[in-house]
Amino acid sequence: MRTVDGEEFRWRLRVYYEDTDAGGIVYYANYLKFFERCRTEWLRALDLDPTRLLRETGVQFVVREAACEFRRPARLDDALVATARVARVGGASLTFAQQLWRDAGAAGAPALLAEAKIRVACVDARNLAPAPLPKTLAAALRRRDAPA
Amino acid sequence: MRTVDGEEFRWRLRVYYEDTDAGGIVYYANYLKFFERCRTEWLRALDLDPTRLLRETGVQFVVREAACEFRRPARLDDALVATARVARVGGASLTFAQQLWRDAGAAGAPALLAEAKIRVACVDARNLAPAPLPKTLAAALRRRDAPA
Amino acid sequence: MRTVDGEEFRWRLRVYYEDTDAGGIVYYANYLKFFERCRTEWLRALDLDPTRLLRETGVQFVVREAACEFRRPARLDDALVATARVARVGGASLTFAQQLWRDAGAAGAPALLAEAKIRVACVDARNLAPAPLPKTLAAALRRRDAPA
Amino acid sequence: MRTVDGEEFRWRLRVYYEDTDAGGIVYYANYLKFFERCRTEWLRALDLDPTRLLRETGVQFVVREAACEFRRPARLDDALVATARVARVGGASLTFAQQLWRDAGAAGAPALLAEAKIRVACVDARNLAPAPLPKTLAAALRRRDAPA
Repeated sequence: MRTVDGEEFRWRLRVYYEDTDAGGIVYYANYLKFFERCRTEWLRALDLDPTRLLRETGVQFVVREAACEFRRPARLDDALVATARVARVGGASLTFAQQLWRDAGAAGAPALLAEAKIRVACVDARNLAPAPLPKTLAAALRRRDAPA
Repeated sequence: MRTVDGEEFRWRLRVYYEDTDAGGIVYYANYLKFFERCRTEWLRALDLDPTRLLRETGVQFVVREAACEFRRPARLDDALVATARVARVGGASLTFAQQLWRDAGAAGAPALLAEAKIRVACVDARNLAPAPLPKTLAAALRRRDAPA
Repeated sequence: MRTVDGEEFRWRLRVYYEDTDAGGIVYYANYLKFFERCRTEWLRALDLDPTRLLRETGVQFVVREAACEFRRPARLDDALVATARVARVGGASLTFAQQLWRDAGAAGAPALLAEAKIRVACVDARNLAPAPLPKTLAAALRRRDAPA
Repeated sequence: MRTVDGEEFRWRLRVYYEDTDAGGIVYYANYLKFFERCRTEWLRALDLDPTRLLRETGVQFVVREAACEFRRPARLDDALVATARVARVGGASLTFAQQLWRDAGAAGAPALLAEAKIRVACVDARNLAPAPLPKTLAAALRRRDAPA
């Protein structure tokens, strides 16, 4: 489930009433919450949860761009898997390629529900000015990139 | 602790998809958002919006207790009116009596949808320790309370 | 983790950015989301998730009353445990006693963050009129009550 | 498919605690809520609120694509203006160009906070299959498009 040093990180989610709307499906903005939970758990798997990052390095991540395609609706009680893959590493930003899948279940094969490209910038938490990626994170990304 | 028979403050709201759930009605936690918007606008009407309060006095309000009865469901597109009345003033807290009404419209008479008692505490924003009500707020509550 | 036939049901949760507010703590309405996730998982553990309940019996649950005390703030990245215990069984409603705890971790002992009493009514999904508890649920609650 | 150079619709918003996160700014997914409120009010201004649309024509709109750039953070208490302009009309979809501005105030000139392209599809509410745009809406878009 948690492949940190692999290419793709996966995180399981469940759809609750809070996520849905009167159209009977998950409200479109809430897919972005699911994607963010997955990115946060990716960081946590690197031992860099947001609180620790802030305390130790004074930075936080803010989203600069989000482009999302909604292919099939997620529904109440669906078991989902969100994925995150670092598609691009900049000096002060990361771009994630993310997907949301409905889990294979009694209902059959897994289905791709949504895809997104999300660019997050690393900023100084005091003034939101751009800040270089924390060294531990940059090192972890290099390690992952190196031949095994 | 002193009980004040406060005036009622009213704030208009509209129900959007974001507020509803797959049951076709407003999700229960979102009524608390509506009540909080109304309390915030009450503060703003006293020229004490949260940002100014924090900057000038270093305090913020946090909710300590919320008791809510949900009488009738609010639905997508409903025009609502939230009300707030200060029911009790403590040294470091305020208790609000609040209601949520569906506005009278083509559909007929206004309907009471929900009622709540919400106790908020004034706290020092740095450590969340109890703090006395800001003087300007206490003064405003006294003025309002005085015989006309 | 999932004690269905015991007295208390427990569900683990994590606090993400989406749950917090500019006060630096979890927004008060979001505790109700946490409590609802726990009630839903309790139902699912009885093999009665909301979707199945609706499809097989035509009913859904709506919250009629919620009373919550907020004792200590939950914060970003906190690992939480929500609990649910059926405190009262009516013909067409259930009352839950629920708690939210910060998990014991490096930070020490678990801490009680919030407590709530939540009354949910069973309603016909077509018109929201009161409906008796589904037989399977009533039976499950009786079984649980019986001496072992 | 026809490109229309639509007029711009504007909708005022206020930032509340519910919209912000522990980073001290509006949570990124919530900008999409603001944009959706503006699109809904645009529909309502055409006398086509979602409830009426559903009742009279059996359709609803679902978002298929959302691409958003977050330029400057919105903060607690900010007075915002969301805009919506129909950028493209398809047989069963509409593409909106939307912006979010911080209102000019004591703080000076208005500032562009976010920009988005949002494609919404018209679907049959029963099965979410693509459906042609309601005639009244198509007519309203043509009227607006015609030379004055």
